[in-house]
Amino acid sequence: MIKKNIFTFSLLATVTLFGAACTANKHNGMDSAEVNVSKPKNIIMVVADGMGPAYTTAYRLYKDDPNTPMIELTALDAFLIGTAQTYPASVSGYVTDSAASATALAAGIKTYNGAIGLDVDKQSVESVLQRAKKLGKRTGVAVTSQIVHATPAAYVAHNESRRNYNEIADSFLDDRINDKNVVDVMLGGGWSYFIRDDRNLVEEFKTLGYQYAASYTDLLSLPKGKPTLGLFADVGLPKALDDVNPHRLSVLTESAISHLENVNGYFLLVEASQVDWAGHANDIASAMGEMEDLEQTIKMLKSYVDQHPDTLVVLTADHSTGGLTIGADGDYRWSPEFIQNMKASVTVMSEKIIDSEDMTLYVEDVFGFALNEDEKNIISGISSSMSGRERESILKSLLDKRTNTGWTTSGHTGVDVEVYAFGAGAQAFAGNLNNIDIAKKIFAFLGDAE
Amino acid sequence: MIKKNIFTFSLLATVTLFGAACTANKHNGMDSAEVNVSKPKNIIMVVADGMGPAYTTAYRLYKDDPNTPMIELTALDAFLIGTAQTYPASVSGYVTDSAASATALAAGIKTYNGAIGLDVDKQSVESVLQRAKKLGKRTGVAVTSQIVHATPAAYVAHNESRRNYNEIADSFLDDRINDKNVVDVMLGGGWSYFIRDDRNLVEEFKTLGYQYAASYTDLLSLPKGKPTLGLFADVGLPKALDDVNPHRLSVLTESAISHLENVNGYFLLVEASQVDWAGHANDIASAMGEMEDLEQTIKMLKSYVDQHPDTLVVLTADHSTGGLTIGADGDYRWSPEFIQNMKASVTVMSEKIIDSEDMTLYVEDVFGFALNEDEKNIISGISSSMSGRERESILKSLLDKRTNTGWTTSGHTGVDVEVYAFGAGAQAFAGNLNNIDIAKKIFAFLGDAE
Ligand SMILES: [Zn+2]
Ligand SMILES: [Zn+2]
Repeated sequence: MIKKNIFTFSLLATVTLFGAACTANKHNGMDSAEVNVSKPKNIIMVVADGMGPAYTTAYRLYKDDPNTPMIELTALDAFLIGTAQTYPASVSGYVTDSAASATALAAGIKTYNGAIGLDVDKQSVESVLQRAKKLGKRTGVAVTSQIVHATPAAYVAHNESRRNYNEIADSFLDDRINDKNVVDVMLGGGWSYFIRDDRNLVEEFKTLGYQYAASYTDLLSLPKGKPTLGLFADVGLPKALDDVNPHRLSVLTESAISHLENVNGYFLLVEASQVDWAGHANDIASAMGEMEDLEQTIKMLKSYVDQHPDTLVVLTADHSTGGLTIGADGDYRWSPEFIQNMKASVTVMSEKIIDSEDMTLYVEDVFGFALNEDEKNIISGISSSMSGRERESILKSLLDKRTNTGWTTSGHTGVDVEVYAFGAGAQAFAGNLNNIDIAKKIFAFLGDAE
Repeated sequence: MIKKNIFTFSLLATVTLFGAACTANKHNGMDSAEVNVSKPKNIIMVVADGMGPAYTTAYRLYKDDPNTPMIELTALDAFLIGTAQTYPASVSGYVTDSAASATALAAGIKTYNGAIGLDVDKQSVESVLQRAKKLGKRTGVAVTSQIVHATPAAYVAHNESRRNYNEIADSFLDDRINDKNVVDVMLGGGWSYFIRDDRNLVEEFKTLGYQYAASYTDLLSLPKGKPTLGLFADVGLPKALDDVNPHRLSVLTESAISHLENVNGYFLLVEASQVDWAGHANDIASAMGEMEDLEQTIKMLKSYVDQHPDTLVVLTADHSTGGLTIGADGDYRWSPEFIQNMKASVTVMSEKIIDSEDMTLYVEDVFGFALNEDEKNIISGISSSMSGRERESILKSLLDKRTNTGWTTSGHTGVDVEVYAFGAGAQAFAGNLNNIDIAKKIFAFLGDAE
């Protein structure tokens, strides 16, 4: 018996010393062993949509101080703990969309591309957010897309198509039965889906006791600890490069936490939604802008976990987007200095440029560097008879050449994505995981509902 | 005192229970703490040149059994433990070549692109292989390139340019002073650098007591445990897809170990050199062929470590090559089934096709699938007046479209690469590392020389 007591002590000592630093050890060729990692009270799942490995490295280089010999680490780097496979159900091949991968991360099952909280047979599957609610925790979503976009939707709703935004918005309210499927805090974009001719969901939520904010300023003035709906744009929020607050995800996340904290704990889904949108647009400057907002959010969460060590934060991507590569065209070079001082996104520029007095001066001012003769010629070819998309392409192409950035697609790619974790139970996410394992591990922490 | 004893016991118990599963915990936001991981007697460093994250995922998909719902894991997956940053010294920007990154992995310092075992001031730096020799271990290299190529060279030689192959070959022999810088086992390609008009290094090595093999068969028949030089090609070995033994790296590695084993232990550098070459050529079929040889090597090493748990195996890449992406052109698809049955590389095909009676039938036979009408038209346009390179491009382009593979460069890209480790001390390599940390951790295991 004495021996057994000492043995127990040794395990506890380990946890105390290393804060759950011991992991189920599949890494050393031993059989998997369950290890006593501490169970989190609060769980914050952060999804950076589209953030493949090239994005995290590119962002580190983008933030590098060229006056030091080594490249500075980002706030993410210290928490890298593994990678995750992203493929959807076999019916959709090897490259996932955000709906299938969000359903995998939320519910722990593989499904077809486009599915929101449904399996391949179109049956509803429970999400970790829904389980957390059943177990008496508060729940929330804080995102930079519309809150009915694929990733948050998969944690909250069930729909055969991610495109049914209005139906999904209805689900956010109508699926609330006997206090189940309740999302206590919802922050992001989406007026056009919540305030419609046929239905005003904002008013309905107010009737149910939710407080409502329609601006970041309003949000900050609301009383804490209350059911809260905050919608700040028709669809997605403005791009980080264009928003009045480039760190809007950090603000929304901090606010969400202030409303969610309670003795039973909470589950919060945070999404840096627009890394993916920048990837689809092959817009390297916006990709870095969105990454900066994500990093600010992770910094804030790290401080929070320091003060609340019973909280788990897991960060991963649902897939990579755009086929981004750091370097291109045979040239061993990547030059982020040409996108470090952007005053607006290329999307905003593509509209404002046609009203500017001197297009070259305008571009030089917003880019923050002098154009060469070739570039001046290209810019002077821009005209109001082009579509905004065409003008934007010209601006992006110029930046791709300057930075030597590569892209292969307007869609997604199949590469494994990185997994980061810190706080209570973080070590459970070590190694190469399947994306469905992330939900399974969160379910295991939450436990069964009756 | 009693408390202290129990504390010590708890640490030992941890190591016993989890086989070095506890790591210095920078992951949970605590201060780094040195943890008692077991020190390896034998160290095998495996570099898969050019193997960025897209390669390891692509290879998993390439090996998938489509008759099962989940994608099978590769022999690498269970050992994923982190990632590594690859950038060179700031004088060379953010995208490394294989010489600078090999010097980083070998010696733990950042240097300029092109440097072999030299720092930015062109001063020689000690490699982990050289330190191991000083400490009485045996040393070896087993690679699929010529053995004087950048990666093995950085562990053995010192030269201001990776291109000085003859000088580097001379160094392999001439730098042997007082039993220092001795490489006991050298296996790979390189006749043209070792058997020259001005010097026959093979004969000189024989005079020094080395046994020599000029074929895989010869190699297997040599007595074990002896200094050995094996050269099997003029420059690099044939591609895995074309070699008489597609698993030649596995064979060379197993042979190297058989000559290196001794009571003092050994350091072995293994390189899957031609993943990179396939990447430069944007040749997806060859990339997968080289990955298959790597996987076979890792499987063999896993069995070896099971029998020899005092051995550490670390696998990483020096950088990624080609800007490979899994999916391209807006299509959410990757179709490796079209490269799973290749009977030869596109390089060999580009020569043989012009001697074939029916080019379409030849291509269908070697590819292992029927061409459609468009493809038949493209193939019938191939002629002997084109360069081999042009013919090869046509074949690669056809496979890229069929598989929906993306590429952005004939050079390298800057993305972080994966790190895998198993065996004694493996957990020391967890998390996001700088490539120089890998050498530093190996130096720490080896200890100081007098
Ligand atoms: Zn997307
Ligand atoms: Zn290379």
